[in-house]
Amino acid sequence: MNTIDTLIHADWVIPVEPDCTALPGHSVAVRDGRIVAILPRDRAQAEYEAKNTVDLPGQVLIPGLINAHTHIAMTLMRGIADDLPLMTWLTEHIWPAEQAHMSDAFVRDGTRLGVAEMLKSGTTCFNDMYFFPEVVAREAAAAGIRAVVGLIMVDFPTPWAADPAEYLRKGIALHDAWRGNALIRTAFAPHAPYTVSDDPLRKVLTYASELDIPIHMHVHETAGEIHQAVEATTQRPLQRLDDLGLLGPQMVAVHMTQLLDEEIERFAETGGHVVHCPQSNMKLASGACPVQKLLDHGINVALGTDGAASNNNLNMWSEMRAAALLGKLVANSAAAVDAAAVLTMATLGGARALALDADIGSLTPGKAADIVAVDLGGVATQPVYDPLSTLIYAAGREHVTQVWINGRRVLRDGTLTTVDIDDALNQAQVWRQKLS
Amino acid sequence: MNTIDTLIHADWVIPVEPDCTALPGHSVAVRDGRIVAILPRDRAQAEYEAKNTVDLPGQVLIPGLINAHTHIAMTLMRGIADDLPLMTWLTEHIWPAEQAHMSDAFVRDGTRLGVAEMLKSGTTCFNDMYFFPEVVAREAAAAGIRAVVGLIMVDFPTPWAADPAEYLRKGIALHDAWRGNALIRTAFAPHAPYTVSDDPLRKVLTYASELDIPIHMHVHETAGEIHQAVEATTQRPLQRLDDLGLLGPQMVAVHMTQLLDEEIERFAETGGHVVHCPQSNMKLASGACPVQKLLDHGINVALGTDGAASNNNLNMWSEMRAAALLGKLVANSAAAVDAAAVLTMATLGGARALALDADIGSLTPGKAADIVAVDLGGVATQPVYDPLSTLIYAAGREHVTQVWINGRRVLRDGTLTTVDIDDALNQAQVWRQKLS
Repeated sequence: MNTIDTLIHADWVIPVEPDCTALPGHSVAVRDGRIVAILPRDRAQAEYEAKNTVDLPGQVLIPGLINAHTHIAMTLMRGIADDLPLMTWLTEHIWPAEQAHMSDAFVRDGTRLGVAEMLKSGTTCFNDMYFFPEVVAREAAAAGIRAVVGLIMVDFPTPWAADPAEYLRKGIALHDAWRGNALIRTAFAPHAPYTVSDDPLRKVLTYASELDIPIHMHVHETAGEIHQAVEATTQRPLQRLDDLGLLGPQMVAVHMTQLLDEEIERFAETGGHVVHCPQSNMKLASGACPVQKLLDHGINVALGTDGAASNNNLNMWSEMRAAALLGKLVANSAAAVDAAAVLTMATLGGARALALDADIGSLTPGKAADIVAVDLGGVATQPVYDPLSTLIYAAGREHVTQVWINGRRVLRDGTLTTVDIDDALNQAQVWRQKLS
Repeated sequence: MNTIDTLIHADWVIPVEPDCTALPGHSVAVRDGRIVAILPRDRAQAEYEAKNTVDLPGQVLIPGLINAHTHIAMTLMRGIADDLPLMTWLTEHIWPAEQAHMSDAFVRDGTRLGVAEMLKSGTTCFNDMYFFPEVVAREAAAAGIRAVVGLIMVDFPTPWAADPAEYLRKGIALHDAWRGNALIRTAFAPHAPYTVSDDPLRKVLTYASELDIPIHMHVHETAGEIHQAVEATTQRPLQRLDDLGLLGPQMVAVHMTQLLDEEIERFAETGGHVVHCPQSNMKLASGACPVQKLLDHGINVALGTDGAASNNNLNMWSEMRAAALLGKLVANSAAAVDAAAVLTMATLGGARALALDADIGSLTPGKAADIVAVDLGGVATQPVYDPLSTLIYAAGREHVTQVWINGRRVLRDGTLTTVDIDDALNQAQVWRQKLS
């Protein structure tokens, strides 16, 4: 008998790699934070002696969800201004609130609240873009959640930095400070083509190549930004990024709702990644990313919620559902963007975009034990003909019961083990009063 | 002091009528199943002596949600065939399964499961279209949920009836049997223009006028059905219904994803109602109902989930969210189909479509006490700047804590009081094995 730390029995395991076929009556064996084996229950019981055994009848195990685009501190601005045109929302509400309140404390409390929401709903890794990223890194590490922290860059001053040189310097210092950490990674995060000029983008590219980390950027979110770029420079932003050399396997392009066929072909050639944020795109009436067309071109697609100020939650379950539904409508085919494609986007697709797929994104022996258990036994999910279909089209965040990250159980029977929820909620109340 | 049955204190009450403004620190007084008053908490405590007092800090009270289009027994076919083209789905999966299994027992068990799901998620009334409607009426009444039971009609034989004459006869008998019931109403439910021919439709119109009940019908769900009608008759289905005299205030037209501007204008003139089913329309790639345009024309719009075989749940919360998000995308405006419009569609809009707005659809003194309490205090909904926005854009079915129908508490602290969930789940398992 092999001794392991944890043996989890479930009615099904959906490993995502090699595919999303549900393995009935399987178990996952975990040792030293890594998946050792996935095998039928009777064999697991014969081969392994576990310090902890967790039996989850009626439940399915899936890889931890990867939220590939967040502005986590903005969780404190959830619902502060809705149903407004995009520019009114940004210029009259979000930006003034940020300039007035953004601080170490704001980002700390926003991150705590957002991390609590994400862990409870089965998200085990997030790719963030916000100011004071050193605070996001610190809070994520403390909560035991995996994060790719964005080294943000904009041309203009904010409470975090005065100019591109300072953004870059502070970003690189943050990267160095967390190098080798088991949970925290970094990516450059130049905000968008319309907020970062050529010279800082060239520097980002140079350092991203040197440090070998991704470049996380809003690209072609709205028709308006493309129209403005063409008016000012005659170039569409994707062409400008290509000319600057930024398109490539390091590029993690978020939104991509406005794409010409030749842009899709070119993006596929470069090996770049797309992060689809369907609910934010719909809520802000930005447009719809042509996901099935991207997949048909072999482009890796990840899934993100965007910030809670434009979603208004960090719920990957409604995001998966929206990705499937909007994907079918846009492709004019009920067979497009199917359940397997969506679960893959929300797990392995995110891992690939973040260059973490050697470690996470699927339930595969050797990878980290980032595992989520989902209870399909209730009245909202029964009967179960196909657990994958039930997961994507019927289940929700409230059916997540257990979450492990690196083998550590951060959600036990629906209760968070690493986050003080009462404190997070109390601080949210304080900020609501300040921001109201 | 006035003696009443129940006094409910909440942090907010959103009455929907006269509008969706959240009333802070208000209470709802209930006597004999009716709302007596909605007033500030201190005044409520001074004026009323209640047999039962329910204190709900952090929670908001809203009218019971009205699911304006269901095929409730199909809950047993949740997820039986997904990600397939519409006609493959219908002809190779849904229709064969129905012909093989549809029966009194199937509809009984499907209704029990669906009612449990709806009550738990705050739906207090549903407008159903399915075979064996007498079973739906019986089960709904037993569970204490309000239902408008569809007197279904198709040209072809099914296990329930052999021909249009028998559908009509059985439908009218059902109407007569439940006349005057406090919870159960009826509507004619000719399935669709492409499944019911002119003569039965004329009879439906005659009897609907005589009995003064709505006509619930799928209309313009897909481009394909319109194309076929035009090929066969040169007429679009809406024109045919108009010629037959069916368009009018009794018409409850479901889906309506394919509409010419002149059809919208004409429909508005007739005073007909539209039931929007955004998630079913997206999942089957049918198209998108132009909701903001309909509202701008003064058309009453209700909201429905459609059956769980094409959704795959009966969750009005994700339906509300989808209605807002898709409505904005289709209107190309982030200000379109706002939170107030969506909550109104899901409550008063449904009541108006079903001609029940004198009794339900808003928290108004004199109306029935169909009341839902929603807890906004958790990490997925905090902070709350605007409870209406939080309800539509952040909250979900799992935040529903209490449900009253006609003043009877059918959900108490998340637990159903009128439905045996274990029995419903056991029967769902039995049917899964039969249908697999």
